[in-house]
Amino acid sequence: MRRVSFESLKDFCQQAYVKAGVPENEAEIIADLLVRADLRGIETHGVTRLPIYIQRLQKGYVRPVCQMTVLKEKGPAVFLQAHGSMGHIVAYRAMERAVAKAEEYGIGWVSVKDSGHFGVAGLFPMMALKKDYIGYIVSNSAPMMAPWGGRERIVGNNPLAYAFPTDHYPPLVLDFSCSVVSSGKLILCRKKGEKIPLGWAFDKDGLPTEDPYEGYEGGGSLAPIGEHKGYGMVIAHEILTAVLTGGKLTRNIKSLYEEDKSGIQGTCHSFMALDPDCFLGREEFKKNMDLYIKSIKESPKAKGTQEILVPGEPEHRTELRFLKEGIPLSPNTEKELATLCRSLEIALPPIY
Amino acid sequence: MRRVSFESLKDFCQQAYVKAGVPENEAEIIADLLVRADLRGIETHGVTRLPIYIQRLQKGYVRPVCQMTVLKEKGPAVFLQAHGSMGHIVAYRAMERAVAKAEEYGIGWVSVKDSGHFGVAGLFPMMALKKDYIGYIVSNSAPMMAPWGGRERIVGNNPLAYAFPTDHYPPLVLDFSCSVVSSGKLILCRKKGEKIPLGWAFDKDGLPTEDPYEGYEGGGSLAPIGEHKGYGMVIAHEILTAVLTGGKLTRNIKSLYEEDKSGIQGTCHSFMALDPDCFLGREEFKKNMDLYIKSIKESPKAKGTQEILVPGEPEHRTELRFLKEGIPLSPNTEKELATLCRSLEIALPPIY
Repeated sequence: MRRVSFESLKDFCQQAYVKAGVPENEAEIIADLLVRADLRGIETHGVTRLPIYIQRLQKGYVRPVCQMTVLKEKGPAVFLQAHGSMGHIVAYRAMERAVAKAEEYGIGWVSVKDSGHFGVAGLFPMMALKKDYIGYIVSNSAPMMAPWGGRERIVGNNPLAYAFPTDHYPPLVLDFSCSVVSSGKLILCRKKGEKIPLGWAFDKDGLPTEDPYEGYEGGGSLAPIGEHKGYGMVIAHEILTAVLTGGKLTRNIKSLYEEDKSGIQGTCHSFMALDPDCFLGREEFKKNMDLYIKSIKESPKAKGTQEILVPGEPEHRTELRFLKEGIPLSPNTEKELATLCRSLEIALPPIY
Repeated sequence: MRRVSFESLKDFCQQAYVKAGVPENEAEIIADLLVRADLRGIETHGVTRLPIYIQRLQKGYVRPVCQMTVLKEKGPAVFLQAHGSMGHIVAYRAMERAVAKAEEYGIGWVSVKDSGHFGVAGLFPMMALKKDYIGYIVSNSAPMMAPWGGRERIVGNNPLAYAFPTDHYPPLVLDFSCSVVSSGKLILCRKKGEKIPLGWAFDKDGLPTEDPYEGYEGGGSLAPIGEHKGYGMVIAHEILTAVLTGGKLTRNIKSLYEEDKSGIQGTCHSFMALDPDCFLGREEFKKNMDLYIKSIKESPKAKGTQEILVPGEPEHRTELRFLKEGIPLSPNTEKELATLCRSLEIALPPIY
């Protein structure tokens, strides 16, 4: 497998975005976020998506130059309109504002409408870590699930993510969507001819299924974590984003892979930054985080378990390893990037 | 089954608290919250707990007169110390502050340490509905679960709750803890001699079990919703409460039914209130909530499902019914309350 350095892969992505009409400085921010996904081992949301992002820019489905308007601002609360700009840069700018508000008020809350797909949710709350703040993001998404008791795929798996600063441990980063598994996992099982366990998905009649095709591509829906509990979370996340801003509800959002001439994919997000200095104190909080993490990690392990992990730990380890060894590109991704290179007249990043 | 009116049951609880040394006005607030649990059909957290609450007051395990100190205050963020006061009144006062802050700043965030068991989480965010604000609460709890990959019961099922105002529909209230089922459900299965499904609990070695006794009373632990996802939520909720305030971690919190001479049960909570006027607008938001709820409820139903519900809808219906028909007291609860009556020299509420 071809391995490339973080920096060279980032430069490459930046060049691709610039070729597609994105300003240099915005292209750098987006490229950094995109490659950071691969660096942390979340390759489903990394450079494998570069071709579709570039294609959408070329087709005019997304705004190449970020435009964001302040619709309302009251103390620590900000309401932004993103006019169909790229999700990555929108979320980056919105989180910057939440952090700036927390600096002034102890807390900042920013809600955005008319944004788009932003990749890995957890990277945005992680921006708050530079100031030792707590970061939070919630978003709606494209349709993935049915309401509990329903059968039409009209709600999203609406992710949330938190980042918490620490003292010596790696930052604790929690990032997940509200379905038991991703649609990608069902597609993979279908390709391998494997059954799926009951509890992963429902068929198009809204009934539990063991068939991965029926559970997603055949018109079914992903199951929420904790049954009605995850369904409730999805509803709450939709309200905190699309309903609160008057933006597009999940049912009206098209996936990255669908034609969309509206120019506004329309995902909505909310962001929060919270300064621990308003409570225990910034340094004391980080020390307390370490004590808490230690108490969890050093507690007795289940039979057969080697190590207890906390959220964000696996990704942090991957990051350290890939910084040293280079980021591996799967043969398929490499092939797709090579095709993109030819059309944009840029060069693939050198082998690490 | 004996049925009693909301008002008479509330008066009765208020009298009991006053007899145990709680000031009249605080006793009224606590009684209202306690009976509202029964009114909404959440009888596990209602008057069935009155005897243990009174016993703890009599034993000096909890502070009868609420004492709360502001440790820090910065703009919309408030840090409170509750000195072992009763959870119900602490959470009520803290949510009042969050709402007052949202009035001034658009958002309010209040974190509290050294509180105690507060009953039904969802009742506190519902206080924000009077102003058409969004309400949120998160709390740690007594130990219920093991870390993911662990076997020691040191983390809580740490509930969260949201309340969202609506126009014509009943308010949307989401209130849940992060375990698949409650410990009460396992105890019930054990009493009935029933097996439990895999996925509900782990035994004391941290391995999946179908035995309800092994899964809880025998030293096991409740399973988190969505496996590692629910585990992550529990961690985040602990950080947003105990770690942020320097209060008691779940592992150091004793349940209501354990002896505790420290005088501080020590649960920690955080509260948020958010004013939709900072975003879409208060009236527009409520109308948008109705449209969203309608779109969910009127979507096609799964085969065999009669109706699609949204969070808080079943509890709202129970409330309307019990206001009309009276609140039913189970024979067991009635017996326990009768015993309490004799010792406090007060009368049971009259039959409705």
